Amino acid sequence: MRYELYYWPTIQGRGEFVRLALEESGASYIDIARGLEEAGAGVPAMLELLDGEMVERPPFAPPFMKTGELMLGQTANILQYLGQRHRLAPTSEAGRLWVHELQLTLCDFVDEIHDTHHPIDGSLYYEDQRKEARRRTAKFLELRAPKYLGYFERVLERNQSSGTHLVGARLSYADLSLFQVVDGLRYAMPRAMKRLEEEIPRVVGLHGHVASRVRVRDYLASDRRIAFNEGGVFRYYKELDGA
Amino acid sequence: MRYELYYWPTIQGRGEFVRLALEESGASYIDIARGLEEAGAGVPAMLELLDGEMVERPPFAPPFMKTGELMLGQTANILQYLGQRHRLAPTSEAGRLWVHELQLTLCDFVDEIHDTHHPIDGSLYYEDQRKEARRRTAKFLELRAPKYLGYFERVLERNQSSGTHLVGARLSYADLSLFQVVDGLRYAMPRAMKRLEEEIPRVVGLHGHVASRVRVRDYLASDRRIAFNEGGVFRYYKELDGA
Repeated sequence: MRYELYYWPTIQGRGEFVRLALEESGASYIDIARGLEEAGAGVPAMLELLDGEMVERPPFAPPFMKTGELMLGQTANILQYLGQRHRLAPTSEAGRLWVHELQLTLCDFVDEIHDTHHPIDGSLYYEDQRKEARRRTAKFLELRAPKYLGYFERVLERNQSSGTHLVGARLSYADLSLFQVVDGLRYAMPRAMKRLEEEIPRVVGLHGHVASRVRVRDYLASDRRIAFNEGGVFRYYKELDGA
Repeated sequence: MRYELYYWPTIQGRGEFVRLALEESGASYIDIARGLEEAGAGVPAMLELLDGEMVERPPFAPPFMKTGELMLGQTANILQYLGQRHRLAPTSEAGRLWVHELQLTLCDFVDEIHDTHHPIDGSLYYEDQRKEARRRTAKFLELRAPKYLGYFERVLERNQSSGTHLVGARLSYADLSLFQVVDGLRYAMPRAMKRLEEEIPRVVGLHGHVASRVRVRDYLASDRRIAFNEGGVFRYYKELDGA
């Protein structure tokens, strides 16, 4: 079954967590909004499902995914579905719930990262909420980033089965997502991250491990990987990068 | 199996979504942090699991829940688990995924509601981010609240099986959560909600339906239901309530 992924075509954003799971799975998928409008793809094809009046179960926002008759929205929900089908989650119920719990915490972290540059509203330009962004980011770097990163360090430390995976002895979609968060923070806040990383050797190790996996490495080197930019979740604004 | 719920004892907060599901299920549970310290309960019992060094799979934050050997964190994850066991979600995979997707969107909505009064950081008092809160809330009322509420109105409208449930013909945990969000917004922003509700008759109907269910009604009238207050997600600050 070929998957159809729907996400904004010029940014990594939240869609990247799904892209990484699809790539690591070796699953067959099309990134619809990056396709040609003449071929019935592109952003209009995505908006038709998002805003179409005939869609019985409309997603709230991208990313969403279609497979056969099933349409699925919400990043963590899509990952839960893919995880079960492509061995990116444990088979036991307790294991699956734990991976999902970690993913939901990662999604919360991503929301907070997004709000460092958009503390007032997503509809306003960064430039129109710069002052608030500086204030929010200072608190984020002082309190929130260490709290989240320290949490995942602790989870890795307490996982008796592995030093490089969050859950059990195998790779899960939560590992892929944590890789992406570290990768994104390195782009967005290189100076601050350098300091933060001193406290989280296991998280840094996980990032390196994921990056070195054959399929992930191939993906990152391909033109399917969109470069980080200032339209996505992880944005580099020099003034926000703590000293 | 008796459930142990762990959440802050003086607020509804995010724990309330779990409480509502437990109450509607008629499940046997203890609200641990509201119990007596002398009896090994209370907040210390919660913090021991949250911060304890021996916890193999530590939750990031309350609410979390224990049942037998299983410990579960993240509101939506707990609800997904309860939904399957207590008929608060469809039995089909597609139905379960759809309820979960809606719940995750509700959780995002709740996060944004929280950030109206805490746009800079949760560690600061409201009074120390009042100016930013006014700006964020104005945008929230102009754009975000209508977007979310309009979305759930649309989902109700498109559900062919029911006029009062989000998914299929039966109550789900997402219905309970939407009830709670409407209830909370009425408390936090009564003037603004009055205006917003004009556009969402089905959502208002769902709120009334859920409130009238025997177990929910009994719960709301009991002292197990903590009153809304300015420590939780839904807070009333007159200056934030749009005209």
